[in-house]
Parts: sequence; C-alpha cells; structure tokens
Amino acid sequence: MNAYYLACDVGGTQLRAALYAPNLAQAVQQKRIPTVGKESATERLMMLIADIWPSEGQVLGIGIGVPGMADPETGIVYKAPNIAGWENLPLQQQLQDRFGVPVVLGNDANVALLGEWRYGAGRGHHNLLYFTISTGIGGAAIIEDQLLLGEHGLGTEMGHLTILPDGPLCGCGQRGHLEALASGTGIAHYVAEQLAAGVPSQLAGQACPNTRQIAEAAHQGDALARSAFERAGFYLGMGLANYLHIFNPSIVIFGGGVSQTGELIFAPMRASLEKHLMSPQYLADLEFAQVQLGDDAGLVGAYVLAQQQISRQRSQSRLSQK
Amino acid sequence: MNAYYLACDVGGTQLRAALYAPNLAQAVQQKRIPTVGKESATERLMMLIADIWPSEGQVLGIGIGVPGMADPETGIVYKAPNIAGWENLPLQQQLQDRFGVPVVLGNDANVALLGEWRYGAGRGHHNLLYFTISTGIGGAAIIEDQLLLGEHGLGTEMGHLTILPDGPLCGCGQRGHLEALASGTGIAHYVAEQLAAGVPSQLAGQACPNTRQIAEAAHQGDALARSAFERAGFYLGMGLANYLHIFNPSIVIFGGGVSQTGELIFAPMRASLEKHLMSPQYLADLEFAQVQLGDDAGLVGAYVLAQQQISRQRSQSRLSQK
Repeated sequence: MNAYYLACDVGGTQLRAALYAPNLAQAVQQKRIPTVGKESATERLMMLIADIWPSEGQVLGIGIGVPGMADPETGIVYKAPNIAGWENLPLQQQLQDRFGVPVVLGNDANVALLGEWRYGAGRGHHNLLYFTISTGIGGAAIIEDQLLLGEHGLGTEMGHLTILPDGPLCGCGQRGHLEALASGTGIAHYVAEQLAAGVPSQLAGQACPNTRQIAEAAHQGDALARSAFERAGFYLGMGLANYLHIFNPSIVIFGGGVSQTGELIFAPMRASLEKHLMSPQYLADLEFAQVQLGDDAGLVGAYVLAQQQISRQRSQSRLSQK
Repeated sequence: MNAYYLACDVGGTQLRAALYAPNLAQAVQQKRIPTVGKESATERLMMLIADIWPSEGQVLGIGIGVPGMADPETGIVYKAPNIAGWENLPLQQQLQDRFGVPVVLGNDANVALLGEWRYGAGRGHHNLLYFTISTGIGGAAIIEDQLLLGEHGLGTEMGHLTILPDGPLCGCGQRGHLEALASGTGIAHYVAEQLAAGVPSQLAGQACPNTRQIAEAAHQGDALARSAFERAGFYLGMGLANYLHIFNPSIVIFGGGVSQTGELIFAPMRASLEKHLMSPQYLADLEFAQVQLGDDAGLVGAYVLAQQQISRQRSQSRLSQK
C-alpha cells in the first residue's frame, strides 16, 4: 500500500497542499485555492486537504507551514496576522479530529529552512541561519541538525533585534529593529521620508515608491535609491555580525523579494559585516547562499517537518510499548 | 575499581582541579595552584593534574573549562587573553598525549552553564540562557538540552551584540556592544567620563572608581552612581529582549560580580526588558535566577562536560564495534 505525507503551505493569498512519498522531494500531486472565500480559512484548508487526500493508500501525517507564531508542541497558532481569525487557534487538534492522522505545525520561516536544509541550498550543513527579507524580516536557525524553536516555539524572531535605539518604528510597535531598518518596508519608508524632506531623486514624482521601483532607480544610478540600499545593507551587516557571534553557522541562506536585488543590498551588507565582526574567524568556511526551492520551500519544508516529527513519534511509541 | 572524572577550571589567577565520581556532584578531592609561575601555564596545568591523579582507580576522562575561545571539536584553544601563550594551542592533544585518557575542552561560560543546568539553578529546564556580568559579559545557551556551540565553537559571544551603533568602545575593538554598555568596565568607564565632565558626585575625588565603589555610592543615594546602574540596566534589558526574541528560553541565569549588585541593575533591566519585548508571551513561565554553584560552577561544569562527551564517545565506539 502506498504511504504519503500531506504538506500544506498557508499564505495570506493562497492555500497550497501537496502529497509526498516518504524520502522523495518531488510532490506526487499539488493543489491550491485562494485563502479568502465565503468559508473561514480553517474550513477552506480542510476542504483543500480533503480534496487532495489520496483515494487509495495511507496518509502518515500532515505538516503545515503557518505565516505567524505557532507552537509545534501545543499545536496552537498564537497569531497569524494575515489570516483572518487565526488567533489562539488549536489548529493541530481541529485537523487531527477531522482527519484522524498526526498533524504538525511550523512557522513558515522554520518550515522553509527545513526544506532548504534537506533538499535545497543547505544540504550537508549542520549549523544554518536563514533570513527572508521582504516586507518584513523573518528568520530561522538549525543548530546541530535541530530546528531552534524555544520553549513555546517563539524563538528566532530574527527581524526583531534592536540595533538602533530610538530608530524607525517597526511593524511590531518597537523602534530600531533590524526589520524596521533593512526590510522592504524599511527601505521604502526611508525613501519616502527623504523625498518628503526634499532630497532630489528621479523617484520624486511618486509619493511612496516600492522596493522594486527603488531598485530600478538604483540600477539607473539614482543617488537616493542607492543610498537607501546602502543603508539597509549596512544595518543588515551589523545585525548579521550579531547573529554570527551568537550562532557561528557554516551557512547563511537568504530568501525573500529584497534579497533578489542582489548586490544592491549584499555588497554593502558584506562590507558592514566585515567591519562589525569581532574576529575574521567567523567567516572561515562560512557560505552565503540564496534559496533554491523558491515558492515550493514551504511545501517541501512542511513535508520534512511532518516526516521528521511523525517518524520520531512512531519510534518513541514503539519504544514505550516494549 | 573506583572510576573518576577529572575536572579543571583554568583562570587568570588560579588553576583548579577536582576528582568526581560518576553521577555525584560532590568532588572527592580538590586542589588549586596559581596560574603564573616559573613554568608555562600548560606545564603548571599538567603538574596539577598529575598531582590530583588518583593513586588507585581509573580516570575515565578530563574536562577543562578555558577562559577564552576553544573549539570542543578540534580541542584547540584559539585565544585565552588572560593566559600567557594560549593562542592556537592544541591543548586537548597535548593533555591526551601526556595522560592517555580522553580530554574535552569547553569555554568557561559554557562550562558554568552546564554545571548550573545539571546541579544548580537550571535543574529541570531544557532551554536556558546564561549571562555572566563582571569585567566583561559572557554568555551561554542550552537549547533542548544541548549546548549551543556553533560550527567551530565560536557561538554565544553574548556580550558582543551591537545595540548602540557608534556607542562606547568594547574590549574587542568594536563599538556599542552590550559588554561596552552593561559590564562592570562599561559602568566604570561611564562614571569616569561623567566625573571628567564635571558631573557632581561623592565619587568625585577618585579618578577611576570601580564597580564596587560605584555600587556603594549608589546605595548611599549618589545620583551619578545610580544613573550609571540605570543606564547599564537599560541596555541589559534591551539586549535581553533581543535574546528572548531569538531563544525563547524558560530560564535566564545571571552570574558574575555585577549581578551581585542585585536590584541596582536588575530593576532597570526588568523595566527596560518589558518595554522592549514585542510580546508579553516571552515572559510567560520565564524564570530569572542567580547562579547557585558560585566558584565551583567551573569545576562542576567541566565534570559534566567530560561525563557527557566521554560517555557519548564510549557508546558510539561500542556501537561501531558491533
């Protein structure tokens, strides 16, 4: 009889699901539906799971990547800001009751890193850091082949590192966080402020240019646009130096839209990193990489999460029966 | 036949050694000698080990706590600033060659946390942070019962976190590190600067009052002395918020001389921590504690390190022989 893991990637726009055979990175089947509809997001997720459920064969378990704070131990989604109604939601229990198989939740950045570690840019590494730089900055860490979660799954909020006291406001309400300085939102805010202050730029006609428009202007040599990426890269390098001092990883993997601007942000980041490290030994054998799995990282990672956790539970329950 | 672990604690002033029976926290015997003498520190350490070596019974292994950067995997001491000549020193190999038993090295903060976790303030916890605040700020982390080391043992340099760009100079040569702002050295530098600028204080007669003198003045109500601890506590709380966002531990253990000033630094630290956390959930079930093992933490921890590593090596070699 065929056996499968069912993986789900919950996003603000789309719900995606896929079936994987154990130890194969290629999905047997994939489906997606919009997150918002006349049913609740939870009901729509259940519809999608029921829809992709194999007509023959066994589902060993379900892994789910959630865009927010989720506790893998209790299976509760504390808060997923982009999913209406997902606050203190016992999602694991609800899905287990409905489908009768083990369910495991993970934060989306953690899940993406699991995917990249097993099947993407991080293969063969044991100590990994992951940063996703887009509207916000998310992060994850694998230490000696174990995902860092913390006591209640609230760890690795890598974007929420104060590095400039009284600096710009962060989405979380605090000031001077790495996310407020080096994310797409941070870059766009800085440019809007400078334009409002009368700094000359080819972007001057636009009230709130976005990161892509700023990147284009920077490629065309616009001084303000270039300085916005230099500033973001400077703080990113400073934050990264902090993280290397803490974690001493062998690879740092970058994902997210802003990281696709490439050298615009990475050149000033590397210069700042070298300036801020207390010892060049932190760079010895250190690899920098971009994500390899792209849009599929969340699905692949949810499958890795399910396979890892559920095979562990099965071997533990076998042991305890002896 | 009796079996022992031999634990050593290397300090700038003293070399200490103790014999432990497996699974007992109480040393069977202890000895100490000054670190500096006519022999090199390594030779003196070997003399001490030979001196405490049991006349009958077996030594299963030696654990050593080192005040500096040491790689537990290669057994090399990269740098121990307070021990003359300890730079890129293959200490593990030299001691194994001399004594013919397995030797394990650990950084002193890591070793102290291991001791507190198994036999002190951290018993029963799985996710622990440790800060030692004295002339510098050292740190360590245990995550799901595993010490965080990093790829080359260079992790958890907790004091070297930039939180005030262009802030005061740190001992490592960088600026604005937590250590430069909240260590005893940071507090003393701040007071000396303010005195030089003419700020009134009962400390005004002294050119460079130390942390103990500043604490006494603060207890007597001296405004400058109080503000020095408030400032240190403020930055310590800001740094701690960063670390809770990253690690989400269930206990934070403090050690070192400055932490013995108690509420002088901890009251402003807690206020700043609450102000800088992005969610009060990081404080749910979080315990704060002071070290319990005092001066013996380094010895007890070196013994825990040896027992842990060497029993792991023995079980692996047994497995590989099958």
